[in-house]
Amino acid sequence: MTRRDVNLGIGDDCALVTVPENCQLAVTTDTLVSGVHFFDDISPRALGHRVLAVNLSDLAAMGAEPTWVSVALTLPNIDVEWLEEFTEGMHEIAEYYNVQIIGGDTTQGPLTITICAKGTVPQGKALRRGGAKVGDWIYVTGPLGDAGLAIESRKQEFKIAPEHLRYVNQRFDYPAPRVAAGQVLRGLASSAIDVSDGLLADLGHILAMSQVGAQIHVEKVPTSVAMQDTLDKSQQLPFILNYGDDYELLFTVPDDNKSMLELKLRQYGVEATCIGQIKSGEGQIELSLNGEKLDFNDTGFEHFSKESV
Amino acid sequence: MTRRDVNLGIGDDCALVTVPENCQLAVTTDTLVSGVHFFDDISPRALGHRVLAVNLSDLAAMGAEPTWVSVALTLPNIDVEWLEEFTEGMHEIAEYYNVQIIGGDTTQGPLTITICAKGTVPQGKALRRGGAKVGDWIYVTGPLGDAGLAIESRKQEFKIAPEHLRYVNQRFDYPAPRVAAGQVLRGLASSAIDVSDGLLADLGHILAMSQVGAQIHVEKVPTSVAMQDTLDKSQQLPFILNYGDDYELLFTVPDDNKSMLELKLRQYGVEATCIGQIKSGEGQIELSLNGEKLDFNDTGFEHFSKESV
Repeated sequence: MTRRDVNLGIGDDCALVTVPENCQLAVTTDTLVSGVHFFDDISPRALGHRVLAVNLSDLAAMGAEPTWVSVALTLPNIDVEWLEEFTEGMHEIAEYYNVQIIGGDTTQGPLTITICAKGTVPQGKALRRGGAKVGDWIYVTGPLGDAGLAIESRKQEFKIAPEHLRYVNQRFDYPAPRVAAGQVLRGLASSAIDVSDGLLADLGHILAMSQVGAQIHVEKVPTSVAMQDTLDKSQQLPFILNYGDDYELLFTVPDDNKSMLELKLRQYGVEATCIGQIKSGEGQIELSLNGEKLDFNDTGFEHFSKESV
Repeated sequence: MTRRDVNLGIGDDCALVTVPENCQLAVTTDTLVSGVHFFDDISPRALGHRVLAVNLSDLAAMGAEPTWVSVALTLPNIDVEWLEEFTEGMHEIAEYYNVQIIGGDTTQGPLTITICAKGTVPQGKALRRGGAKVGDWIYVTGPLGDAGLAIESRKQEFKIAPEHLRYVNQRFDYPAPRVAAGQVLRGLASSAIDVSDGLLADLGHILAMSQVGAQIHVEKVPTSVAMQDTLDKSQQLPFILNYGDDYELLFTVPDDNKSMLELKLRQYGVEATCIGQIKSGEGQIELSLNGEKLDFNDTGFEHFSKESV
């Protein structure tokens, strides 16, 4: 991947890049630690993909176009084969999203990967968490819960039918950041976030920043056929509502923009489903299932310990 | 630290910043791993300072003005007191250099810190490694070898006199990236690098990228009084020539710019010493000591294992 806006790539004290005129630079950083954020037996290719994907997902949630990434890789030892596969996994997704690796640092130590991803967004068009208003519609791209299904099935809590196994594992191992969706939302959505911590937790971030509440029609939250075939409705709830790592986008749209948004989503082939509406009452989430109020107090899975500054 | 060019700081999916018109963005990333890049008993304040300093030093070596940093911190556990001191150390140096922390990720795992530092440099004015030409003069800011002196004295190889101890430890624990010097060099120096791996190794990077050789008058390489009082001339050589971690700038200047450079250095209070000249012969370094050819084959200290992509 060689981008024309990279004036100097790897090999000097710094990389040099040019941000287009009238654009802001969006910056995000995420670390994955072995044994904390991924299983030790993860394939290096999947790991290379994943670490870039989770960072690109943050750029997608801002409506930014991903452009450049810096990769800091800490490895216990130099295993050439491992490194090749890891690099391939990372390069594949970088290529797909037209992102250039502009620098990095490889050090010795316990397996840890930190990426700092950069992107550009037209001045003032970034999607923030704090713009949701009472009456806005709440949407989510793609089905939720598949990553959770993959993780929990590996812990042998239940079995996934053979015909769904590949799909489910793919959803966890090779998450697809919703970069195109994020860019479609510019100028239409009032807020956005990616679902990394779980629907309720991430919706909570939007509500807190926007000082509003929400009603969610749980039966409208999209799920995969694999999910529907594996768990019954009540078993699905914690996966849909509390599991993260799906890297779908959750966003809100003012009523005035709703039809234009749905038109543009179709036009760009982005699937998104309206699952509820913003209400008053800061931070309050009201859940309903087929018209009945749903009491759901599951505090979520302790699958990963993760904090952000 | 709140910079006016930070449009959105910590707390959303990404930070948003504005790069000034006609400027390029310079990006660098460096990781410090416990037990590899620093002693386990390092004070958290010194560590917070150090990890930012080594990154700012790379920006300095490009002639960039440091602006924003992302901090990825992996910690074995949450030790509030430790974290406060670390943060203070980092904020002190950030404040001093007018740099804003715009985001980060705190994760659980073995102590590792990765910083991605960003800066801006006027279009086309960045100092690269590849611009040195035959006849250019070679300079270095500040004395070399002090960081090595600090490390080796802690391993009890020799004693540093009490009156120098504070200075030497300060030089290692609180390195001062030569940010002002880097900016003074814009438009005057033909190449630059920071001395992180040792004078000969880092000079080697300039020579390789510039496809030239060099002659160094070793007696001209500046050393501190602490160094002079602790080791005799021949003992000093490996510290001066091979030890890194001093974070001084090494740069080359065409003869035509020499007097202007020396004027500007004095004007801005930057100390730098001419230690040799660029010659033909790619990658070859000729050392002389008081007019005599010096054979120096020390391969350096194995104090840190460090690689860069």
